[in-house]
Amino acid sequence: MTKNNEQLSLEVAALTRKTKELGIPIMIVFEGVPASGKTRLSNELLLTLDAKYTHFVPMKSPSEDDLRYQFLQKYWNSLPSKGDINIYFRSWYAYYIEYQANKIKHSIYNKYHALRRQIKDFEAMVQDDGYEIIKFYIEISDKKRKEHLKEMKENPLTSWKAQEYESAINDDVYHKEMHKILKASPDEWEIIDYTEREEAINLMYKHIIDRLNNAIRLHKKKDKVIDGDFTEEFKTDLFDQSIDKVSKKTYKSLIGDLQDRLKELQFALYERKIPLILVYEGMDAAGKGGNIKRVREKLDPTGYEVNAISAPTDVELNHHYLWRFAKDMPRSGHIEIFDRSWYGRVLVERVEGFATKKEWKRAYEEINQFEKMWTDEGAIILKFFLTLDKDEQLRRFKEREETPEKQWKITDEDWRNREKWDQYIEASHDMIKFTNTDHAPWLVVPADNKKSARIEVIKYIIKKCEEVLWGVKQY
Amino acid sequence: MTKNNEQLSLEVAALTRKTKELGIPIMIVFEGVPASGKTRLSNELLLTLDAKYTHFVPMKSPSEDDLRYQFLQKYWNSLPSKGDINIYFRSWYAYYIEYQANKIKHSIYNKYHALRRQIKDFEAMVQDDGYEIIKFYIEISDKKRKEHLKEMKENPLTSWKAQEYESAINDDVYHKEMHKILKASPDEWEIIDYTEREEAINLMYKHIIDRLNNAIRLHKKKDKVIDGDFTEEFKTDLFDQSIDKVSKKTYKSLIGDLQDRLKELQFALYERKIPLILVYEGMDAAGKGGNIKRVREKLDPTGYEVNAISAPTDVELNHHYLWRFAKDMPRSGHIEIFDRSWYGRVLVERVEGFATKKEWKRAYEEINQFEKMWTDEGAIILKFFLTLDKDEQLRRFKEREETPEKQWKITDEDWRNREKWDQYIEASHDMIKFTNTDHAPWLVVPADNKKSARIEVIKYIIKKCEEVLWGVKQY
Repeated sequence: MTKNNEQLSLEVAALTRKTKELGIPIMIVFEGVPASGKTRLSNELLLTLDAKYTHFVPMKSPSEDDLRYQFLQKYWNSLPSKGDINIYFRSWYAYYIEYQANKIKHSIYNKYHALRRQIKDFEAMVQDDGYEIIKFYIEISDKKRKEHLKEMKENPLTSWKAQEYESAINDDVYHKEMHKILKASPDEWEIIDYTEREEAINLMYKHIIDRLNNAIRLHKKKDKVIDGDFTEEFKTDLFDQSIDKVSKKTYKSLIGDLQDRLKELQFALYERKIPLILVYEGMDAAGKGGNIKRVREKLDPTGYEVNAISAPTDVELNHHYLWRFAKDMPRSGHIEIFDRSWYGRVLVERVEGFATKKEWKRAYEEINQFEKMWTDEGAIILKFFLTLDKDEQLRRFKEREETPEKQWKITDEDWRNREKWDQYIEASHDMIKFTNTDHAPWLVVPADNKKSARIEVIKYIIKKCEEVLWGVKQY
Repeated sequence: MTKNNEQLSLEVAALTRKTKELGIPIMIVFEGVPASGKTRLSNELLLTLDAKYTHFVPMKSPSEDDLRYQFLQKYWNSLPSKGDINIYFRSWYAYYIEYQANKIKHSIYNKYHALRRQIKDFEAMVQDDGYEIIKFYIEISDKKRKEHLKEMKENPLTSWKAQEYESAINDDVYHKEMHKILKASPDEWEIIDYTEREEAINLMYKHIIDRLNNAIRLHKKKDKVIDGDFTEEFKTDLFDQSIDKVSKKTYKSLIGDLQDRLKELQFALYERKIPLILVYEGMDAAGKGGNIKRVREKLDPTGYEVNAISAPTDVELNHHYLWRFAKDMPRSGHIEIFDRSWYGRVLVERVEGFATKKEWKRAYEEINQFEKMWTDEGAIILKFFLTLDKDEQLRRFKEREETPEKQWKITDEDWRNREKWDQYIEASHDMIKFTNTDHAPWLVVPADNKKSARIEVIKYIIKKCEEVLWGVKQY
């Protein structure tokens, strides 16, 4: 017995109550040429779903402000949270085609290969995290389409509509590019012909029901084993490096000049619209805060932000782990300093068992891809790992406890982390081993001497920025 | 013994750790003409504060996108959460002056009286909620200022700077308008002369220390008494209204045409850039969801959003109660439908004791002011209260329990709310009494007959939109 559309609609509603309960986020994409019926079809679906957790996300042409951010920025920002459903009325695919058609940042994207890779990586990342992506491409007979178009154009109240969302892309270009995409990965797309409305609705609901049932089944099988996978008595000499120790006098004479140079570079980066992303990780009490303070001390505060990472809020926990960082990435020409970062996934989350083994193992590659999305557009990413001798950490902990105005800096958590010293060492070692890429390199900075570490970091930032700005090593 | 600036800086740092702990949000405003030293001064403060909970918010000239939103929209969006600190590098004051100087939406704002009132209301609302606002106006001797300017202009790396944040406002206009503001409320502002840097820093820290100490003292005295203030056996005939009951046949012949008309009006509002805000409140099982579904059924989904309000997240609880609604208000020409709304403050929060008596009593006026901010700019706000006979509610509850596909709609909470029927009636009565304004009226809709209620609401929306669009009652 075949079910009618009303029954299927009730079934979809019931299944989405289930996915809501299980916390499965759903992303439903509608692509299609104008007047193909994708408004009517997506509206049909929208009315079926519970407004409490359904969001309709229409694709809009990039504004000037959008162009100051990473290509996928707005799709990162609007990621659904666990159990929520986003309906994309045209999606990152149409957005990509618009970049192409209007030759936006053409030289950067190397004929847009980079964008196609980004889309692939983005989808894979969220799918691996349990997001269900359902993609529809809506077609229609030429005759019907012409009827729709005529209707729209004749009604003065709807004639603006094509303009608002679709004028920027030429229909033929859109059609051609979408068909390349469909051809390259036919299994990912459900093509629906809207010529017969009831039939189209039927197909849409059936496909969604299949996919939701599948997502629910996979969810139940989800890997729950927690295991930090540590070696007994792990040893590495990665952190046994040394740097030139600067004297108090040298420090005093150097630091101001270096900061002045950094400020000049801030302006130069601003002018060239190059974003700079500085990531700090390191052992507790290694002096990250003080180091960051010296980097920012003379910078123009209107052009940078410090993002000091605390435990995630419940809203953040309900999203993909990269979401909270993605939405704070800098716009063109700005500097973002992360005091701890997305590397928490492979450090504290691995050590404390907040992420499953599968999750943190996968994270190295995800993070490399994530960083690449920004460096693709010319962003500079520099990552610092501040290391400390275990005895020196103990000395600093004790000093903090004994100095009244520093007591707030030391907590029970610091002592607990110290007990897991070896595990943090191994996790840090693996992190650097797997994420020390050409596009976003790590610098291991011995920080037993705070002043030397500051000089080392600032010199490195200056050197790297100068290389990018003028292509020569000036320092 | 006078303390030096280093000591004062440590004191400010310690006090802000205290305000963080207590959850007091702080907003620090820096206004001043260009090259007055407000960058240097605000930077000094920024370096003193903990980056974990401090945000630097530079004023930017309104972009085209900004102009599609309410004047204070971005200040609502960026409100600090409890315990956090925002430093405004130029604030809503400079933003206001820029609206003036560039004659933005001049005709709407009635010579900008409306904006000044909005600023006053906005500050009062957040202050009443425990936000501490500290406002600095930075001055400098002409001689020093000219030196600063010369420095900035001579350095090719900084000459763009004045442009980015300040070019849109003429210095003289800014100076003149700010002095009117300072004169009108001298007690609210701390004027600091930056001619002598160390002295200026000293004054800034001392003022902040005074204000933070004061805020901490007031916080401790905070009203904690919870009392819904209900009358024994409250009676009102406000909800004993009747509407024409439509037959099934009439409903069927009417509803489609009304929906078509609504869709046309959606496009007309879009063209005229008028936002429409629909607010639904009412008793449980009164049929809000079904009513909303009929309103939206034929609307273009790219032009409206439904915001179905659930219990607040922890992030929302950490902000002013209006924040979560303010940030979802529609941009020009769009429709936002709230399924439950900010009126929760005077309904569920009053009945359940989630808000103190002081808080919910104050909320009527706050909500009127809040809604006025949007209607000031031409938004249409229509509010519907769906009422139900107590016996009819019981019948619907039981029907939901007995119908498998409706069971998810009925929860223990519904039964608990029903026990407080009289209290909800009194709270609803007071709500309508105190917030039924000309700019945002309530319509009480008897919903014992769902179909009649739907026709009633849609007709009312059509009538009100037509009045605004064409100034005549056409229906």
